[in-house]
Amino acid sequence: MSSGKHLAKGSAKPVLPDDGVLRLYSMRFCPYAHRAHLMLNAKKLDYHTVFINPIEKPEWLGEVSPLLKVPALHVVTEKGQPSLIESLIIAEYLDDKYSQNPLLSKDALKRAQDKILLERFNGITNAFIKILMQNTGLDDFWTALDIFEEELTKRGTSFFGGDNPGFVDYMIWPWLERLALIEYLLKDNYTFDEKRFAKMAQLIFLLKEDEAVKGFYATPEQHQEFWRGRQAGNASYDLLA
Amino acid sequence: MSSGKHLAKGSAKPVLPDDGVLRLYSMRFCPYAHRAHLMLNAKKLDYHTVFINPIEKPEWLGEVSPLLKVPALHVVTEKGQPSLIESLIIAEYLDDKYSQNPLLSKDALKRAQDKILLERFNGITNAFIKILMQNTGLDDFWTALDIFEEELTKRGTSFFGGDNPGFVDYMIWPWLERLALIEYLLKDNYTFDEKRFAKMAQLIFLLKEDEAVKGFYATPEQHQEFWRGRQAGNASYDLLA
Repeated sequence: MSSGKHLAKGSAKPVLPDDGVLRLYSMRFCPYAHRAHLMLNAKKLDYHTVFINPIEKPEWLGEVSPLLKVPALHVVTEKGQPSLIESLIIAEYLDDKYSQNPLLSKDALKRAQDKILLERFNGITNAFIKILMQNTGLDDFWTALDIFEEELTKRGTSFFGGDNPGFVDYMIWPWLERLALIEYLLKDNYTFDEKRFAKMAQLIFLLKEDEAVKGFYATPEQHQEFWRGRQAGNASYDLLA
Repeated sequence: MSSGKHLAKGSAKPVLPDDGVLRLYSMRFCPYAHRAHLMLNAKKLDYHTVFINPIEKPEWLGEVSPLLKVPALHVVTEKGQPSLIESLIIAEYLDDKYSQNPLLSKDALKRAQDKILLERFNGITNAFIKILMQNTGLDDFWTALDIFEEELTKRGTSFFGGDNPGFVDYMIWPWLERLALIEYLLKDNYTFDEKRFAKMAQLIFLLKEDEAVKGFYATPEQHQEFWRGRQAGNASYDLLA
């Protein structure tokens, strides 16, 4: 589970040991890459991380991620050593491939329902990005979050996955961890309504104590500091390196 | 495999027999709904179709598709009789649930790679809609199609699924069937390059003879006639009813 600085244009391609260990090309503050880290941690899989500067991408990135995307999982464990992209596809691949700690149900209907729920999570990610970019859209954000509060209430469990965190929990966590960014940007306009989102508040509290989450965690202050730099056109990707 | 006219606002909710048969809420000319029909046909599943007018939706639609979306698969076969939405999720559910004629590989890597390919198909659907709406973007369309020509060449098989149509083949077919719309809109600017897209041309030829495809097929002229009406603000949803 290495880390290190974000590699940029002009950097040498890192020499990784020929050890058959999965390689994740990531960016430390990308919520989509965050999903891949959470899955790898939750499945207790060993992996190498290579952080990539997403603005000034290294020339050799295409060799390990043909579409120059991050996150990319270089599956050196498979024939032909291909790379996988798209956070949800990477996550499902890991769950399908490695049987320990299964996160998506094996039941076709439950799988489909969890995937529909994650489609609906786009309402949250879209509202989130709008707040980040335009400082507006908080109402839409809360309305989108209502859906998750309702669903969690309906399921009657602590986590979307049941008594333990499941696929949905890990896939939405990166945005829950970044609520501090909304608070930072909207200041007093931001109040997390602990009554309206009682189940979600409890979920956040519980997930913060989860080992997979703790294995790739940044504090509210760190997320805010990163965003401050990014807004100023000077993102400190290596803040935690 | 019923059909009938598209039901609109003010229509009575159709009374379907309590026969435990899947119910698909669809629109005859929607390429996403088309995917669901193809999957149901390919799996040789019996199903009721209820066509919905997407502009003037019936008041009762929310009872069978809570987000008022089409396609929606009402799975009366499952406990609680929920509805599923999102064409790819519906398609994967059907393949996971019903073992006959498996369309997605059981291999985790191949599944992931097919899903990445379908993500990349968004390049085609986006270019397609741009041509439909703005009569422009043909170059982008061909460039996006190059990816599929290359991939099919690389796989060295007639279909993306191998010797028989698979998941990818059925998921992309609705847009291949609608190439005639581009021809209709762009007239002489449209030429399907049979050399550049030799494998795709063969794929189209072969898929046209597939039973699942033939079971829900509209001719180039029918697609064009539907689009002419839609452009004129007078879509004839019931053209084939």
